[in-house]
Amino acid sequence: MNLFEEGLNFNFDVLVEWLITGGLKIVVILIAFAIIKPLGTKAIEAAINRMSQQRNIAEGRNKTLQKISVNLFSYTLLFILIMMLLSAVNIEIGPLLAGAGILGLAIGFGAQGLVSDIVTGFFLLIERQIEVDDYVTAGGYDGVVEEVGIRTTKIRSFDGTLNFVPNRNIVGVANHSRGNMRALVDIGIGYDENIDEALAVLQKVADQFAEDERFVEGPNVLGVQSLGSSDVVIRILGKTENMEQWAVERDMRKAMKEALDAADIEIPFPHQVFIQKES
Amino acid sequence: MNLFEEGLNFNFDVLVEWLITGGLKIVVILIAFAIIKPLGTKAIEAAINRMSQQRNIAEGRNKTLQKISVNLFSYTLLFILIMMLLSAVNIEIGPLLAGAGILGLAIGFGAQGLVSDIVTGFFLLIERQIEVDDYVTAGGYDGVVEEVGIRTTKIRSFDGTLNFVPNRNIVGVANHSRGNMRALVDIGIGYDENIDEALAVLQKVADQFAEDERFVEGPNVLGVQSLGSSDVVIRILGKTENMEQWAVERDMRKAMKEALDAADIEIPFPHQVFIQKES
Amino acid sequence: MNLFEEGLNFNFDVLVEWLITGGLKIVVILIAFAIIKPLGTKAIEAAINRMSQQRNIAEGRNKTLQKISVNLFSYTLLFILIMMLLSAVNIEIGPLLAGAGILGLAIGFGAQGLVSDIVTGFFLLIERQIEVDDYVTAGGYDGVVEEVGIRTTKIRSFDGTLNFVPNRNIVGVANHSRGNMRALVDIGIGYDENIDEALAVLQKVADQFAEDERFVEGPNVLGVQSLGSSDVVIRILGKTENMEQWAVERDMRKAMKEALDAADIEIPFPHQVFIQKES
Amino acid sequence: MNLFEEGLNFNFDVLVEWLITGGLKIVVILIAFAIIKPLGTKAIEAAINRMSQQRNIAEGRNKTLQKISVNLFSYTLLFILIMMLLSAVNIEIGPLLAGAGILGLAIGFGAQGLVSDIVTGFFLLIERQIEVDDYVTAGGYDGVVEEVGIRTTKIRSFDGTLNFVPNRNIVGVANHSRGNMRALVDIGIGYDENIDEALAVLQKVADQFAEDERFVEGPNVLGVQSLGSSDVVIRILGKTENMEQWAVERDMRKAMKEALDAADIEIPFPHQVFIQKES
Amino acid sequence: MNLFEEGLNFNFDVLVEWLITGGLKIVVILIAFAIIKPLGTKAIEAAINRMSQQRNIAEGRNKTLQKISVNLFSYTLLFILIMMLLSAVNIEIGPLLAGAGILGLAIGFGAQGLVSDIVTGFFLLIERQIEVDDYVTAGGYDGVVEEVGIRTTKIRSFDGTLNFVPNRNIVGVANHSRGNMRALVDIGIGYDENIDEALAVLQKVADQFAEDERFVEGPNVLGVQSLGSSDVVIRILGKTENMEQWAVERDMRKAMKEALDAADIEIPFPHQVFIQKES
Amino acid sequence: MNLFEEGLNFNFDVLVEWLITGGLKIVVILIAFAIIKPLGTKAIEAAINRMSQQRNIAEGRNKTLQKISVNLFSYTLLFILIMMLLSAVNIEIGPLLAGAGILGLAIGFGAQGLVSDIVTGFFLLIERQIEVDDYVTAGGYDGVVEEVGIRTTKIRSFDGTLNFVPNRNIVGVANHSRGNMRALVDIGIGYDENIDEALAVLQKVADQFAEDERFVEGPNVLGVQSLGSSDVVIRILGKTENMEQWAVERDMRKAMKEALDAADIEIPFPHQVFIQKES
Amino acid sequence: MNLFEEGLNFNFDVLVEWLITGGLKIVVILIAFAIIKPLGTKAIEAAINRMSQQRNIAEGRNKTLQKISVNLFSYTLLFILIMMLLSAVNIEIGPLLAGAGILGLAIGFGAQGLVSDIVTGFFLLIERQIEVDDYVTAGGYDGVVEEVGIRTTKIRSFDGTLNFVPNRNIVGVANHSRGNMRALVDIGIGYDENIDEALAVLQKVADQFAEDERFVEGPNVLGVQSLGSSDVVIRILGKTENMEQWAVERDMRKAMKEALDAADIEIPFPHQVFIQKES
Repeated sequence: MNLFEEGLNFNFDVLVEWLITGGLKIVVILIAFAIIKPLGTKAIEAAINRMSQQRNIAEGRNKTLQKISVNLFSYTLLFILIMMLLSAVNIEIGPLLAGAGILGLAIGFGAQGLVSDIVTGFFLLIERQIEVDDYVTAGGYDGVVEEVGIRTTKIRSFDGTLNFVPNRNIVGVANHSRGNMRALVDIGIGYDENIDEALAVLQKVADQFAEDERFVEGPNVLGVQSLGSSDVVIRILGKTENMEQWAVERDMRKAMKEALDAADIEIPFPHQVFIQKES
Repeated sequence: MNLFEEGLNFNFDVLVEWLITGGLKIVVILIAFAIIKPLGTKAIEAAINRMSQQRNIAEGRNKTLQKISVNLFSYTLLFILIMMLLSAVNIEIGPLLAGAGILGLAIGFGAQGLVSDIVTGFFLLIERQIEVDDYVTAGGYDGVVEEVGIRTTKIRSFDGTLNFVPNRNIVGVANHSRGNMRALVDIGIGYDENIDEALAVLQKVADQFAEDERFVEGPNVLGVQSLGSSDVVIRILGKTENMEQWAVERDMRKAMKEALDAADIEIPFPHQVFIQKES
Repeated sequence: MNLFEEGLNFNFDVLVEWLITGGLKIVVILIAFAIIKPLGTKAIEAAINRMSQQRNIAEGRNKTLQKISVNLFSYTLLFILIMMLLSAVNIEIGPLLAGAGILGLAIGFGAQGLVSDIVTGFFLLIERQIEVDDYVTAGGYDGVVEEVGIRTTKIRSFDGTLNFVPNRNIVGVANHSRGNMRALVDIGIGYDENIDEALAVLQKVADQFAEDERFVEGPNVLGVQSLGSSDVVIRILGKTENMEQWAVERDMRKAMKEALDAADIEIPFPHQVFIQKES
Repeated sequence: MNLFEEGLNFNFDVLVEWLITGGLKIVVILIAFAIIKPLGTKAIEAAINRMSQQRNIAEGRNKTLQKISVNLFSYTLLFILIMMLLSAVNIEIGPLLAGAGILGLAIGFGAQGLVSDIVTGFFLLIERQIEVDDYVTAGGYDGVVEEVGIRTTKIRSFDGTLNFVPNRNIVGVANHSRGNMRALVDIGIGYDENIDEALAVLQKVADQFAEDERFVEGPNVLGVQSLGSSDVVIRILGKTENMEQWAVERDMRKAMKEALDAADIEIPFPHQVFIQKES
Repeated sequence: MNLFEEGLNFNFDVLVEWLITGGLKIVVILIAFAIIKPLGTKAIEAAINRMSQQRNIAEGRNKTLQKISVNLFSYTLLFILIMMLLSAVNIEIGPLLAGAGILGLAIGFGAQGLVSDIVTGFFLLIERQIEVDDYVTAGGYDGVVEEVGIRTTKIRSFDGTLNFVPNRNIVGVANHSRGNMRALVDIGIGYDENIDEALAVLQKVADQFAEDERFVEGPNVLGVQSLGSSDVVIRILGKTENMEQWAVERDMRKAMKEALDAADIEIPFPHQVFIQKES
Repeated sequence: MNLFEEGLNFNFDVLVEWLITGGLKIVVILIAFAIIKPLGTKAIEAAINRMSQQRNIAEGRNKTLQKISVNLFSYTLLFILIMMLLSAVNIEIGPLLAGAGILGLAIGFGAQGLVSDIVTGFFLLIERQIEVDDYVTAGGYDGVVEEVGIRTTKIRSFDGTLNFVPNRNIVGVANHSRGNMRALVDIGIGYDENIDEALAVLQKVADQFAEDERFVEGPNVLGVQSLGSSDVVIRILGKTENMEQWAVERDMRKAMKEALDAADIEIPFPHQVFIQKES
Repeated sequence: MNLFEEGLNFNFDVLVEWLITGGLKIVVILIAFAIIKPLGTKAIEAAINRMSQQRNIAEGRNKTLQKISVNLFSYTLLFILIMMLLSAVNIEIGPLLAGAGILGLAIGFGAQGLVSDIVTGFFLLIERQIEVDDYVTAGGYDGVVEEVGIRTTKIRSFDGTLNFVPNRNIVGVANHSRGNMRALVDIGIGYDENIDEALAVLQKVADQFAEDERFVEGPNVLGVQSLGSSDVVIRILGKTENMEQWAVERDMRKAMKEALDAADIEIPFPHQVFIQKES
C-alpha cells in the first residue's frame, strides 16, 4: 500500500532527525554531568573537611559525614541524569515522574521520621551535643552514650539496659558530663533545736569537706530552706568534680548525721499532736 | 457522502501512522524494560546480600528483605510500563493518572501508618535493635520478643499475653538483653543504729556474694543513699549476668535481712512522735 | 448568511471527523476494559484465595475480603472508564477532574480516618491478631471480641458493655488468649518470722497445686521479692492454662493464707512505731 | 480604518464559529446532565433503601440519609455543570477553578473537622453503634443518648446536663445498653475469720438473689480476690438484666452486710499495729 | 528602520485585535457578573432567612449570619472577576495566581485555626448548642455565656473572670441549662447502725422535700451505695428545677444531718483498729 | 557563513519585535501598578481607621496595625510586579516561581507558627481580649500584661518573672480584670455543733462585711456545702470590687475564725475513732 | 544518505539559531544577576544594621544575622540562576525541578523542625527574650543561659547539667532576670493563738527586714491566707533585688521562727482528735 509506505517514509525521516537531535542533546548532557559530578563531590568533601577542622570533629566522624553527603548527592544526580536522557530522546517521562511522584508522596508521608532522624543526627554530630561516654538524659532515656549514629543513638542505662533512641526523639539533650556538678544535701532538724547551733555544727562538717579534692567549690550551709510539718530543713550546697556528686553526697549525709548525733541535735521523726476525746 | 469519506480517509492515514510510530515506540520501551527488570532485580539482591554479610544478618531474614524489596521494585516498574505503553499509543493517560492520584492521595493519608511500619521495621531488622528472644521494652509493652516482622513485632509479656506492636509505635527500644545488668538493693536501718557497723555487716554479705558466679562485678555497699523519714537508707550495688539480676536481688535481700537480724541491727517500721494534748 | 453557513460547514466537517475518531477510540477503550475487568477480578480473587489458604483464614472472612477488594477495584475502574470515554469524545474533563479533586481533597482530609480503619482492619484480619472470642486489650478497651469488622471491632467488656472500637484506634493489641498464662501471688509475712520456715510452708502449698491440672508449670516460691515497710513480701509464680489464672490465683491465696495461719506465721497489718512525747 | 475593520471582521467570524461550536457542545452537555441527574438520584435512593432494609434502619433515619446523599450529589453535579458550560463557551475557567481551589484549600484545612463529623456520623447511623435512649460512654461524656445527628450527638448526663458531642470526637463507643450486665460486689472480712464459713454465708445470700428475676445468671461467690492490708476481700459476681445492675448491687450489699452481721463475721476497719517506744 | 516599522505595524494590528476581542469578552463577563451578584446575594439571604425561621433563630443573629455569608460571597466573586478580566485582556495571570497561591498556602497553614473558629461558630449558632445566659462547660471553661461570636465565645466564670474561648477549642459543649437537674446527696452511717432504720429516717426527710416546689421529681433514698472503710454510704437522689440543684443539696444535707442526729444514728469519723505490740 | 548570518538576521527581527511588544506590555503593567499601589494603601488605611474608631482602639495601636497591613500589601504587590514584568519580557519565570515555591513550602511548614502568631495577635488586639495592665491567665502563664505585641505578649508573673508568650499559644484567655470578682470562704465546724447557731454567727459577720465598700454585693452564708470526714463545711460568698477579692477573703477568714471562737463553736482538727484490740 | 544529510542540515540550522538566541538570553540573564546580587546583599546588610541599631543588638550578633541572611539569599539566587540558564539554552529543566521537588518535599517534611528552629531563634535574638547569663525557664529546662544560637540554646541547670534546647521547643520563655522579684513566706500558727498578736510579732520582723537593702519594697504581713487543717496560715510578702529572693526568704524564715518562739506562739505539728472506742 502506498499509503502505508508513505507513512513509513515520513516516519523514517522523523526517526532519523529524532536520532540526531537526540544524540546531540545526549552528548551535551553527558558532558555536563561528567563535569558536575567530580566537581560537586570535591566541593562537598572540601566543605565538610573545612567544617570539621573548625569544629574539631574527629577523623572517623568526618569520613562518615562525607560518605553520607556524597552518596546523597550521587543518587540525586543519577536520578536527574536518567530523567534528562529519557526526555532528550523524547520519550514521555511524565508517567515515570508521576509514578515516582505518587510513590514519593506515599513514602514521604511515611518516611518523614527517617529524614527527621538524619537531620537531627547531623546536628547532634556537628554541634557536639552528645559524645560517646557522656552521661546524658535524652529522648526519655538516661544513661551513658555508647554510640551516636546518623539515625539512632545508643544509650546504656544505669541498670545495664541498652536503649536505641531514634534521633528525632531527642528533642532536648541534658548533658550531665559538661563541667562541674552541684552536690546538695537537705537535712531536717527538730523544731525545738537551736537553729544557730545546728548551722554551726553543719558548717563545721562542710568546712572539713571543703578540703576534699573532689570539691571544686567548698560546700556551704545556705540556711533554712523550709519550715516543714515536723522539721526545720537546712540546705547544704557545694560544687564537685563531674560524676563525683553522688559519692560526695553520700559521704556528706553520713558525716552530717553523725555530727548532729554527736552535738545531740535531733533529726526528728514525723510529729503529730493527739487530742483525746471521749466518744 | 463525500465529506464523510474524506474524513474517514484522513482518519485512516492518521491511524496507520499512529500504528507505526506507536509500534516503534512500544518496541523500544519493551526492550528497555526487558533489560532493566532483571538488572534491577539482580542489583537489589546483590545490595541486600552484601549488606547482610556486613551486618551479620541471618539467611532467613536476608531472604525476607530481598523478597520485599524485589516485589516493591516489580510493582513500581509494572505501573510505569503500563503508563508508558498507553502513552506511546497516544491514549490519554491523564485520567488514569488522575484517578490513581486521587486514590493515591486518599490512601496515602490513610496508609502512611503502614509505610511508617515498614520503614521502621526495616531499620529494626538492619540495625538489629531487636532480636527474637530478647527481653525488651518497646512501644509500651514489656516482654520477650517472639517475632520481628516487617509490619508488626510480637512481644510475649511476663503474664503470658501475646502483644502485637505495629513497628511505627516502637519509638525507642530498651533492650534488656545486651550485656550485664546491675543488681541494686536498698535497705533502711534505724536512726539509732551505728552506721559504720551496719555498713560493715552489709559489706560482709556483699563479699560473700562476690564469689557467686552470677556476679560479674562483686556487689559493693555504696553508703548512705538517703536520710528517710524513719530510716537511714543504705544502697548495695553489683553487676550480674544478664537475666540473673532478679534472682540475685532476691537472694541478697534475704541474706542481708538475716545478717542485720543476726547483728541485732534494726530495720525500722515507720516512726511517729506523738504529743498528747488535752482537748 | 454565507459567513454563518461557512462556519456551520467547517464545523460539520470537524463534527464528523470528531465522531469517527472518537468512535474508534471508544471502541478500543471499551474492548480494553472488557478484557481488564474480568481478568482483574479473577486475579484479585485468586490472590486472596491463595493468601487465605496460606494463612488458614476462615471461608467467611475470605469472602468478605474478596468482596471488599473486588468492589474497590470495580469502582476505580468505572471512574477511569468514564474519564477516558469523556476524554475520547474530546469533552473537557478538566472541570470534572478538578471538581472531583477538590471534593476528593476535602474528603481525603476528613475521611483519612476511614481509610486508616480499613487498612488496619485488613491487617488485623490477615495477621490474625484478633479473633472472635479472644480476650484482648485493644484501643483502650478490655474484653472478649464479638466481631472483627473491616471498619470497627466489637469488644464485650467484663461488665457487659459492648464497645465499638474503630480499627484505627487499635494501635497495639494485647491478646490474652494466645498460650498459657502466669499466675502470680505476693504474700507478705512479718519481719519477726523466720523466712526459711515461711518459704518451706508456702512451697508445700505450691507443690500441692502443682498436681492441679490447671497448672501447666507447677507454681514455685521465688523468694523475697521486697522488704516492705511492714512485711517481707514473698512471691509465688506458676504457669496455668489460658483463662484459668484468676481462679487459680484465688484458690492459691486462700490455701496459702490458711497454711500460714496453720503454721502460725503472721501476715502482718501495717506497723508503726510510736514515740510518746510530752507537749 | 481598514485595519480595524479587518480585525473586527476576523473577530466576527471567530465569534460566530465560537457560538455554533459552543452551542452544540452546550446542547450535548445539557442532555447528558438531564439524563445523569435523575438516574443518579434514583440510584442513590435505591442504594440507601436497600441498605436500610438490610440493616433494619428506621424510616425517619432512612429519609435523612437519602436527603443528605442526594443534596451532596446535586451540588457536586451543579458545580461540574457550570464548569463544563463555561469551558464549552471557551471562557477561561482557570481563574474560577483557582479561586475555588484556594478557597477550597483554606476551607479544607479548617473544615476537615466538619467532614470528619459527617463521615463518623454516617457510620454511627449505619452500623447502629448508638441509638436514641441507649446509655453510652462516648467522646468523654457518659449518659443517655437524646439524638444522633449527622454532625452532633446529644447525650444527657446523669446529672441532667445536655452534652453536644461533635461526632468526630466519638473515637470509640462504649454502649451499656446492649445485653445483660454484670453485678459485682467485693466484701472484705477480717483476717481472723474463717474464710470457708464466710464463703458459705455469702453463697447463701447469693442463692437467695438467684431467684430474683432481675438476675439472668445467679450471683456466685468467686473466692478470695485479694489479701488486703486489713481484710480478706471476697468477690461475688452475677449477670443481671440491663440497667438493673446498680439496684441489684445496692440490694446485695445491704443483704450481705446484714448476713455477715448475723453470722458474727467482722467487716474490719483499717488495722494498724502500734509499737510503743520511749523517746 | 523598516524592520522596526514592520514590527511596530504587526504589533499594532495585534493590539487592535486584542482590544476588540478583549472588549467583547469583558462585556460578556461584566454582564454575567452583574446578573450573578444580586441573584446570589438574594439566594443566600433567602436561604438563611428560611433556615432561621425553621430553627427559631433570633432576628439579630439572623442578620449576623446573613452579613457574614454575603460578605464572603462578595469577596470571592470580586476575586474571580478580577482574575477573569485580567485573563480576558490576555495579561498573564499566572504570576498573580502563583503569588496569591504561595501567600494563600502560607496563610492557609497559619490561619486554619481562624477558619476552624468560624466553621464551629457557625454550627454553635445554627444548632443552638450555646445561648447567652446558659450555664455551660466548654473548651475547658465553666460559667455563664455572655456572648456567642462567630470567632470567640465569652464565658463568665463563677469567680467573676471573663474567659475568651476561640470557638475551635469548643470540642464538646456540656450545657447545664437544658432541662431539670439531679440533686444527689451521699451520707455515710456507722457500721453498727441498723440500715433499715437509717433508710426510714432519711426517706422521711426526703418525703418532706418532695413537697418543696423546687423538686420536680421527689428525692428518694436509693439504698446502700457502697461499703466504705468506716461507713455505710447511703445515696439520696431527686430531680430539681434547673439551677436549683446546689441550694437544694445544701438544704438536704443540713436536714438529713439533723434528722440522723435526732434519731441518734451516727455519721462516723474515720475508724481505725489499733493493735498494741511491745517493741 | 550565510547560514549563521540568516540565523542572526531572523533572530534580530524577533528581538526587535520582542522588545516592542514587551515594552508596550511593561508600560501598561507599570501604569496599572502605579494606580493600584496608592489606592490600595489608602483603602487599607481607611478600613483600619474606620475599624479602630468603631472599636475604640487607641491611636498607637491603630498605627501599628496600619503599618503592618500596608507593609504586607506592598511586599505582595512588589513580588507580583516583578513576576509580571519578567513574564512580559518573555523570560521564563517558571524557574523563579518554582524556586520561590520550594522555598515557600519549606518555610511555610516551618513558619506557620509565625503566621499563627500574627493572626492570633491581630484578633487579640481587635477584639480587645487583653489590654496592658489586665490580670490574665493565658498560654499557661498567669500575671499582669506588660505588652501585647503582634507576635508575642509579655506577662509579668506574681513572683516577678517576665514571661514571653508567643500569641499562638494563647488558645484561651481568662481575663480577671473585667468586672467584679467573687470572694469565697469555706469554714468547717464540728459535727457536734448546732448548725443553725453557726450559720447565725457567720451571717452576722457577713452582714458587717456587707457594709465594707470593697463589697459590691454583700457576702452571704449559703449553707452546708459538704459533710466532710471530720467537719461540716459552710460556705460564704460575696461579690467584691475587682482585685480586692484576696484581701477581702483574708479579712473574712480572720473575722469568722474569731467570731466562731467567741461563740465557742469548734473548728475541728481531723478526727479519728480508735478501737483498741489485743494482739 | 541524502535523507540523513538533510536531517543533519536542518538540524544544524536549528542548532546555530539555538546557540545565538540562547547566547543572547544568557548574556541578559547574567547581566541581570550581576546587578541583583550585590544590590541585594547590600540591601540585606543595611536592613539588618538599621534594625540592630534600633534594637541595641550587639555587634557580634549583628554579624551572625547578616551572615545567615546573605548566605540564604546567595544560595536561592544561585539556584534560580542555574535554572534560568538551563532553561535559556532550552534544556528541559522539568526533570531537574521535579527531582528537586520530590527531594524538597521529603526534606521539607523532615526538616521543618530545622526551619522552625531558625525562625524561632531569629525572634529570640531580635526580641531579646533571652540573653546570655539570664536565669530562665524555657522548653522544660530551668537554668542560666550560656549561649543563644540560631538553632540551639544552651541552658546550664542548677545542678550543673548543660542542656541543649532546640529553639523550636521554646514555646514560651519565663525570664527570671528582668526586674525585681517577690519573696514570699507562709507561716502556720496554732488555732489557739491570738491572731492579732502573731500578726504584730511577724510585722515587727518584717519591719526589720524592710531596712535590709536587698529589699526594694519592704516585706509586709498580708493576713490570714488560709485556715489549714491544723494551723492558721499567715503570709508575708515583699519585693527584692533580682536573684536575692531565695537568700532573703531563708533569712526571713529563720528570723520569724525565732521571733514566734520568743513570743511563745506555737508553730503547730499536724493535729488529730482521737476518740477511743471499745472493740
